[in-house]
Amino acid sequence: MRLAILGGTGDVGEGLALRFAYDSDHEIVIGSRDPERARGKAAEYETELESRGVDRKLTGFANEMAADRADVVILAVPPAHVAAVIEEVAPRLDEDTIVVTPAVGMERDGGFFRYSPPESGSVAELVAATVPDPVRVVGAFHNLSADRLANLDLTFDLDTLIFGDDPDAKDVVAMLVEDVQGLRALDAGPLENAPVVEALTPLLVTLGMYNDAHDLGVKFQ
Amino acid sequence: MRLAILGGTGDVGEGLALRFAYDSDHEIVIGSRDPERARGKAAEYETELESRGVDRKLTGFANEMAADRADVVILAVPPAHVAAVIEEVAPRLDEDTIVVTPAVGMERDGGFFRYSPPESGSVAELVAATVPDPVRVVGAFHNLSADRLANLDLTFDLDTLIFGDDPDAKDVVAMLVEDVQGLRALDAGPLENAPVVEALTPLLVTLGMYNDAHDLGVKFQ
Repeated sequence: MRLAILGGTGDVGEGLALRFAYDSDHEIVIGSRDPERARGKAAEYETELESRGVDRKLTGFANEMAADRADVVILAVPPAHVAAVIEEVAPRLDEDTIVVTPAVGMERDGGFFRYSPPESGSVAELVAATVPDPVRVVGAFHNLSADRLANLDLTFDLDTLIFGDDPDAKDVVAMLVEDVQGLRALDAGPLENAPVVEALTPLLVTLGMYNDAHDLGVKFQ
Repeated sequence: MRLAILGGTGDVGEGLALRFAYDSDHEIVIGSRDPERARGKAAEYETELESRGVDRKLTGFANEMAADRADVVILAVPPAHVAAVIEEVAPRLDEDTIVVTPAVGMERDGGFFRYSPPESGSVAELVAATVPDPVRVVGAFHNLSADRLANLDLTFDLDTLIFGDDPDAKDVVAMLVEDVQGLRALDAGPLENAPVVEALTPLLVTLGMYNDAHDLGVKFQ
């Protein structure tokens, strides 16, 4: 499968790119506004993988080119940039493309982190309202620490919640999730359920602050 | 410690009463609007415990009497009854009492369960606004299945999130939580953080529906 990670030069993008490259055979394409930066980061990830005996070719392109012919496009960009990045890549998306949204809006509010969704109600709903009509949107990877993903020395046993309105697209993303060792996909229902899944992330950050336990993930059992 | 479980005849109350009686030495008092029903249920719990070789005396009273001289009062009642029950027991609460709120408002909305808090923003904020002024309020036990608590054959390894504005009261409740085998208390910050903790419960129910995995709890790791 061809997997484009837009914002693949940021923390979440880096974590996902390294894990997918390490644990699966999918083709990984790093997207960024700046193609030079995308290429540089792709090379950096290759070096990191090589140091672990994994010989992998990652490519880097401007977002639009990265999304070209991708089966799955992951929007690993901050909520404020989501709409602009989708508009950038829209000509390359069609009814075969699955767009995955892992982003969460949150802000610190004194003693804790507060969920702070865009006006659409959630980042996922903003994505769904912005992609061209036939493109299918799935939420996933919200409740994972970017640093833990990127540190290939670490193993984990965590869940990621999948939501969306297209069952086939959810199945594809669930399979993709489970290519990562130690990650289990759970079905969290329709896209409308996005706010409660996205809101888990600021809770994880708050729990980290209060319990001296950073980079927490979640397991439902 | 003297522990009053108001609504102790309902599912959540039964689960908490049985677990605390089974795993700790705290005095357990069952409260209900109907004292006869409270006494009947207390006797039923005693029989259940006796069948497992645990010789325990549980008492049952009308809510107001149950709350009398209790160190911790657990409001195991549906959100719609919370305010009325607090008013009933208010004369028995003082600055030494800790009121614990485990209740969550939710409703089924087609394909998933939606968080449906009272107008105050959360059940916990409603409780805090209703108790007499010096009484301390702590949220806990939201994300646990009543059936799993009540089935003493089951062991578990789960978290419960504690929130509130009084650090000492939170410490007392955290210790109480950890008297239950397999339960870990995590500090989820101030009372203002209640909505995101309460909203986890409808998510757990939704995950149960979609993943054929009922009575899920949560572990942060």
